[in-house]
Amino acid sequence: MKSWTRADIQAMQQRYRAMFINSLSGFKSANLVGTTDANGNENLCIVSSVFHIGADPALMGMITRPQSVRRDSVANIKATGYYTLNQVNTDIVVAAHQTSARYEADISEFTETGLTAHYEPGFVAPFVAESQLRIGLKLVETKLLEINQTELIIGEIMLVQSKESALEPDGSIDIEQLNSVAISGLDRYHSTQKITRLSYAKPHSQPEELLFDTPDQTSQE
Amino acid sequence: MKSWTRADIQAMQQRYRAMFINSLSGFKSANLVGTTDANGNENLCIVSSVFHIGADPALMGMITRPQSVRRDSVANIKATGYYTLNQVNTDIVVAAHQTSARYEADISEFTETGLTAHYEPGFVAPFVAESQLRIGLKLVETKLLEINQTELIIGEIMLVQSKESALEPDGSIDIEQLNSVAISGLDRYHSTQKITRLSYAKPHSQPEELLFDTPDQTSQE
Repeated sequence: MKSWTRADIQAMQQRYRAMFINSLSGFKSANLVGTTDANGNENLCIVSSVFHIGADPALMGMITRPQSVRRDSVANIKATGYYTLNQVNTDIVVAAHQTSARYEADISEFTETGLTAHYEPGFVAPFVAESQLRIGLKLVETKLLEINQTELIIGEIMLVQSKESALEPDGSIDIEQLNSVAISGLDRYHSTQKITRLSYAKPHSQPEELLFDTPDQTSQE
Repeated sequence: MKSWTRADIQAMQQRYRAMFINSLSGFKSANLVGTTDANGNENLCIVSSVFHIGADPALMGMITRPQSVRRDSVANIKATGYYTLNQVNTDIVVAAHQTSARYEADISEFTETGLTAHYEPGFVAPFVAESQLRIGLKLVETKLLEINQTELIIGEIMLVQSKESALEPDGSIDIEQLNSVAISGLDRYHSTQKITRLSYAKPHSQPEELLFDTPDQTSQE
C-alpha cells in the first residue's frame, strides 16, 4: 500500500489533485439535473454528487460547484424553485457527459446533446425522456459550505417516474434493471452486476441473501 | 413508466417508503467508518452516504442518521475529532454489511465481524486492514439539517492509503481495480464493469474515449 499525507496532497499539481481526490469517495450516482430559467430557457447538466438525505419527508441532496464559477443550474433552481433529476443509463452516457461542456446560458443542452425534454403538467422543470428513473423536486433549502464556497442543495421529491417492471414487492427499485450507470473519479462510467442483496443485519446472526429480488433470479432457485 | 406523486409517497407504509426512496438517488459508495471513543473502544459502521465536497482543501462529506437514534460513530467523531473511511471491496461485503447491526456501544464491530483494525502512528482512529483504499480524516465541521435532524459531517483528508498499482499517471485511482463495490437502495451490493472513460467535455466537439487508463486496456489497442 502506498501512503499520501496531507502535505503530499497539497503539493500535487491542481489537475492531478482533482483527479486523485475525486477518486477517493467511491462509486457515485449519475444524474442529469433539468431546469429552466425564468424565461423558459432549458438547462441540463450531469452531476455525480446526488445523495439520499431522508425518506420522510423524501429529501435528496447535491453539492454544487463553488460560487466562483458560473452555475446555470443552481441559478435556475433558485429562480424557479424546481428541478428534475434523471438517472443516467448506459444508452445515454456520452450525451450525458457532454452536458458538462461550458455552453452559454441561452443554449439548451437538450438541443446540443440530442436528449429529449419531457414536461409534466404543472411542473416547470424538464425531465429527460431517455431516462428510466426521473424525479421532480421542489427546492426546500440551500446551505452554503463556507469552507470551500460550495452549496448543499436540498430538494423534496414531488414526483417519481420509473419503469414499473423494476419495482420490487418491498418498494425497492432494482436500478440495475434500468441499466443505470455509476461514476468514479471525474470521468469513468461503469455498469454494474449485482453481487448480493443482504437481509437487515442483527447482532449474533449472519446476514442472509435475499432472493426475491428479480424474477429471473427467483426462478433460478 | 409508472408515476408516483408526493401524496402517493406519503401514503406508503414506512418500511416500503424507506426502500423506495433509498433506491432513487442511484449508485452509492460503500465505506466503513472507523472510530474510537475517548476510552479507545473501537467502532466500525458501514455508510453509503459518503461524497466528495472539494479537492483543495481535500474534503469529504457524509450524512448521518437522525439525532433521535443512537449513533456511536458520530459521538466518537465528535469526541476524538478523527475518523477513517475504508472502501468496501468484494471480499468483505458480508462483514461490512454486518457492521450495521445494532451492537452495544462497548462491543467492537471489528471483533464481531472478523475485520482487522490497523493503526497508523499518530492517528487515533482505526483503519480496516482488508480495505484497499483507506482515508484518514479530521473533523472540520458538522451542520445540522434541521429539516429532518440528520447531520452533514465534513472531514479534511489527512492520510490516504491505496494499492499503488491502481494509481494512474494522471492522479486518478481506478477503484474498479481495487474490486470496490457500489450500493443501491438499502441492501444491494454491486461489482462494476467499466463502460468508458471520457475526455473533458467542450462545446462543439464530442467527448473522446480515454484509453490510457489500465495497462491491459492499453495493450488491447
